[in-house]
Amino acid sequence: MASFLLKSFLVVLAVFFISSMVQASDPDILSDFNVPAESTIDGNFFTFTGTRDIFGSIIEKFTVTKVSKAEFPALDGQSVSLAVLQFPGGGVNPPHTHPRAAELLFVVQGSLEVGFVDTTNKLYTQTLQVGDLFVFPKGLVHYQYNSDWNKSATAVSGFGSASAGTVSLPTTLFATGIDDQILAKSFKSDVATIQKIKAGLSS
Amino acid sequence: MASFLLKSFLVVLAVFFISSMVQASDPDILSDFNVPAESTIDGNFFTFTGTRDIFGSIIEKFTVTKVSKAEFPALDGQSVSLAVLQFPGGGVNPPHTHPRAAELLFVVQGSLEVGFVDTTNKLYTQTLQVGDLFVFPKGLVHYQYNSDWNKSATAVSGFGSASAGTVSLPTTLFATGIDDQILAKSFKSDVATIQKIKAGLSS
Amino acid sequence: MASFLLKSFLVVLAVFFISSMVQASDPDILSDFNVPAESTIDGNFFTFTGTRDIFGSIIEKFTVTKVSKAEFPALDGQSVSLAVLQFPGGGVNPPHTHPRAAELLFVVQGSLEVGFVDTTNKLYTQTLQVGDLFVFPKGLVHYQYNSDWNKSATAVSGFGSASAGTVSLPTTLFATGIDDQILAKSFKSDVATIQKIKAGLSS
Amino acid sequence: MASFLLKSFLVVLAVFFISSMVQASDPDILSDFNVPAESTIDGNFFTFTGTRDIFGSIIEKFTVTKVSKAEFPALDGQSVSLAVLQFPGGGVNPPHTHPRAAELLFVVQGSLEVGFVDTTNKLYTQTLQVGDLFVFPKGLVHYQYNSDWNKSATAVSGFGSASAGTVSLPTTLFATGIDDQILAKSFKSDVATIQKIKAGLSS
Amino acid sequence: MASFLLKSFLVVLAVFFISSMVQASDPDILSDFNVPAESTIDGNFFTFTGTRDIFGSIIEKFTVTKVSKAEFPALDGQSVSLAVLQFPGGGVNPPHTHPRAAELLFVVQGSLEVGFVDTTNKLYTQTLQVGDLFVFPKGLVHYQYNSDWNKSATAVSGFGSASAGTVSLPTTLFATGIDDQILAKSFKSDVATIQKIKAGLSS
Amino acid sequence: MASFLLKSFLVVLAVFFISSMVQASDPDILSDFNVPAESTIDGNFFTFTGTRDIFGSIIEKFTVTKVSKAEFPALDGQSVSLAVLQFPGGGVNPPHTHPRAAELLFVVQGSLEVGFVDTTNKLYTQTLQVGDLFVFPKGLVHYQYNSDWNKSATAVSGFGSASAGTVSLPTTLFATGIDDQILAKSFKSDVATIQKIKAGLSS
Repeated sequence: MASFLLKSFLVVLAVFFISSMVQASDPDILSDFNVPAESTIDGNFFTFTGTRDIFGSIIEKFTVTKVSKAEFPALDGQSVSLAVLQFPGGGVNPPHTHPRAAELLFVVQGSLEVGFVDTTNKLYTQTLQVGDLFVFPKGLVHYQYNSDWNKSATAVSGFGSASAGTVSLPTTLFATGIDDQILAKSFKSDVATIQKIKAGLSS
Repeated sequence: MASFLLKSFLVVLAVFFISSMVQASDPDILSDFNVPAESTIDGNFFTFTGTRDIFGSIIEKFTVTKVSKAEFPALDGQSVSLAVLQFPGGGVNPPHTHPRAAELLFVVQGSLEVGFVDTTNKLYTQTLQVGDLFVFPKGLVHYQYNSDWNKSATAVSGFGSASAGTVSLPTTLFATGIDDQILAKSFKSDVATIQKIKAGLSS
Repeated sequence: MASFLLKSFLVVLAVFFISSMVQASDPDILSDFNVPAESTIDGNFFTFTGTRDIFGSIIEKFTVTKVSKAEFPALDGQSVSLAVLQFPGGGVNPPHTHPRAAELLFVVQGSLEVGFVDTTNKLYTQTLQVGDLFVFPKGLVHYQYNSDWNKSATAVSGFGSASAGTVSLPTTLFATGIDDQILAKSFKSDVATIQKIKAGLSS
Repeated sequence: MASFLLKSFLVVLAVFFISSMVQASDPDILSDFNVPAESTIDGNFFTFTGTRDIFGSIIEKFTVTKVSKAEFPALDGQSVSLAVLQFPGGGVNPPHTHPRAAELLFVVQGSLEVGFVDTTNKLYTQTLQVGDLFVFPKGLVHYQYNSDWNKSATAVSGFGSASAGTVSLPTTLFATGIDDQILAKSFKSDVATIQKIKAGLSS
Repeated sequence: MASFLLKSFLVVLAVFFISSMVQASDPDILSDFNVPAESTIDGNFFTFTGTRDIFGSIIEKFTVTKVSKAEFPALDGQSVSLAVLQFPGGGVNPPHTHPRAAELLFVVQGSLEVGFVDTTNKLYTQTLQVGDLFVFPKGLVHYQYNSDWNKSATAVSGFGSASAGTVSLPTTLFATGIDDQILAKSFKSDVATIQKIKAGLSS
Repeated sequence: MASFLLKSFLVVLAVFFISSMVQASDPDILSDFNVPAESTIDGNFFTFTGTRDIFGSIIEKFTVTKVSKAEFPALDGQSVSLAVLQFPGGGVNPPHTHPRAAELLFVVQGSLEVGFVDTTNKLYTQTLQVGDLFVFPKGLVHYQYNSDWNKSATAVSGFGSASAGTVSLPTTLFATGIDDQILAKSFKSDVATIQKIKAGLSS
């Protein structure tokens, strides 16, 4: 009987434990920082070395290396994250949104074609050179493209959230199982075309 | 000379005036409400009658009637807005996001197929009956569809912002002028298919 | 001994568990949504069916049906909730406040007399028809009244918080045990009158 | 013609000017402080001397001396304010709410009976001595009472908003013109009793 | 085996327990108040008596008595705290910052020299008398000094956070072990001078 | 007369204009972005080219190049900014705080010694290599030092505010005119030592 109660209790606690980890939030915190419960906290906790070799690597396909709360827990409660974007010649970062932050992109190598669309359906574009910055406002659809097929490009992006999130639109729309009929009606297209796009993205 | 100074000054003020109207923000306010500068404020200021005839109308195509800060200035600073969604038989509200709020949808007539995709690319769907509610989390791609071709459907949606904003994805992606090559690469498709979709949406 | 430590530990955890559930907060979240720890999350988690029969019911007394975080856990972290207000002929929603949100009321059946008082003690009133909306600013005292004794009225209200809270003033002031003398002095009345009102509200 | 345009323009600007002053908000600011446009800002701007004689005065009736954004503009954007509450023997601060902040009360002279009611209609009371503190949670109905008829009492209260606001419930409910019938129904009383209370508060 | 799993599980829970306590945050809460999990909550929970004797004590050295979330858990979620500052004649509160709140200081006895420096390196100073208030903007370096060697001074300060935090600059800079060379370069001084200051602060 | 009114009116508007520019705040905005009132907004508005040549320059002294709201107005309302930190061999960024944001530093060239002190007076240090990141929590004192006298170092830092602000502690404490006696008492030193440090910093 006691064992049953204990087990029940632990199940409840386990559920709560998992639940709470998902419930972390981005507001100002009431302490200097949020620490995971380790016996000793030192400078290593505030250090991320997972990108140590990033600048020496050869860029073969478009790659986003995120340094957000998921990869670097010390960011929890600090409302900031970074990402490194690496484009081979001709590489594209497909249209996407970040639900929880604006993005301030800084080109540190090569050049990029960038653009975003606001909620009035106006497209804003720019060609960026090394050392240029561009801001993609919060929640809006945007993309980057390295139009130079002979040279790779690298950018460092800052976000005003420890967990900006990313909604990749080709995948979200055409590779998650949304009904063909609904997509065909939505895009004023036909089921055959929708299926063709789905096939391309799933290959 | 004085005239020149005056004109310059007014231009600066005009610029600031336009700028400031765009800069309105959603946080808690330091007053009971924000009032436009009218000589007298009474109960009419807090009343919106633009939807008075909405329930009697015949629904011929999918229609969103927003009651947000733009239509109802008294909402400024109150962090809430509503919208009425009316679907004819077979009507669809294409995939879209609201950059600044979650949506809590309440079906008041008919039934709806709804869905959204989270940032891990998981699709969540549901069939809603009259009286059911569904919440679309903040910033995520979602849609609604009235699969009953013989009956219209109506929903009332609440938003936790006076200005949730809407990013319609078919329009944003394929009707704002994003370069065909960038779209073709992004959707792992070809320029011809992209142009076909663009043509459908622009007709 | 070990058993004693284990029990002590579990008590501490239990206390923390209860404590934490009360500590949930309304800010922007760092994830798409907050999930209770169930083994599988699907579309049902984001669906609320507790109001499915609400529109067919006969309205015999004033009724508020809340769909907030308490009833619909998926609203946690999404900063929005709704309520359905049903008034029989002559029904009143007594003066009250919502400590954590403004209310945007939408009349979907019948008509309502509404009013609120701001912090300068000014009363704002309005008569609303079907399809009209009215916003009650955050934290202010307000009421609704169906003055038509022959027709019921229904409203759907949106709130910019998942847990707006309600302070009913007749109950709060006269049915929670506040000392008669303090109330008599506060209302510049006498103990007999205070006790008469208390008696009416407790019957 | 030019004159007409100029006048129209100035009217628009004036409207905007008044409007904007009302729209001030409480969030974190992007500067060290918000300054009114004076030619020179020095230490006097951050100083409030309006309460310099407050501790020497004789307390004849209950008095609240607020030091909020309205009285002390330097508080704008700093999210804090204070008030001094002075009670003669037997003095009462009638039930009220602060829509925009919790109150942390510190008794610096005498003693006080205090209480508040939460949204579950539970009353919490306490008798406070000199040096004691009590917190009234945000938006809830509360009161203070100096039950010692022979000794005055003084408290200093802190608020987590530069403009907490106050809703005095006796005045709000019974001295702003809310319809007698609505109040009678709301308080489950009769029009004669409502009118008696109204008369007492208006005298 | 089961025992091992149980122990492992409890360790994980303990880690989470400690971690979560540190993660408390200051935003608006979704409940009236946050309660620790005690079997019964009454008025005592909202009362702090740790400062009951504060006004009768003799002030021998500068003393800050904080009433923040750490000392008074009921403040959690209420975004407000207070502190009592007591200065003997000639007493100083050294330059410091509060990372999470502005400070509104109220002189209740004696007089004080106060000052702060903004981010443009401008110093603002004032001499305060009994009953005067001064606001130190959020995050800026400030100090208070009782220049009257014959009279003590007392102030009550309000903060717009339940946990404002304090960074004492003499201690932070010269008594935490920052490398002498780095400090010498930073202060454009020499190692000997840095070590002299360090020695004074550590004695 | 009309002229006098006009002038008075314009003075009021000018005062408001200056005042409002200082009052800008960091919260979520109710629009996609905040625009200055230019006749046409295009991609250039969202682009910053002031750092185009930054990577080719020779680093002769420690230099911070900020890209915040002041330099790049499109960041207003987007809650993010970046800075480039360039250190010659042996260069130091003296102890300082950012009142309005945490800093996430990314070493893109060379190596850095970094450290910060929390509000419990604990020092956290680290030696960073190229590709490493370090987070300095919001509002805490921190520094960076390039201990390699033969090699320059460069870092890109992200901030979760469009206007993080900087409080340089050597300058704030010893070069803004704070009274020598107050500093001597605060640092438990003597006036001669304080004056020596002041002299070094002012030279």
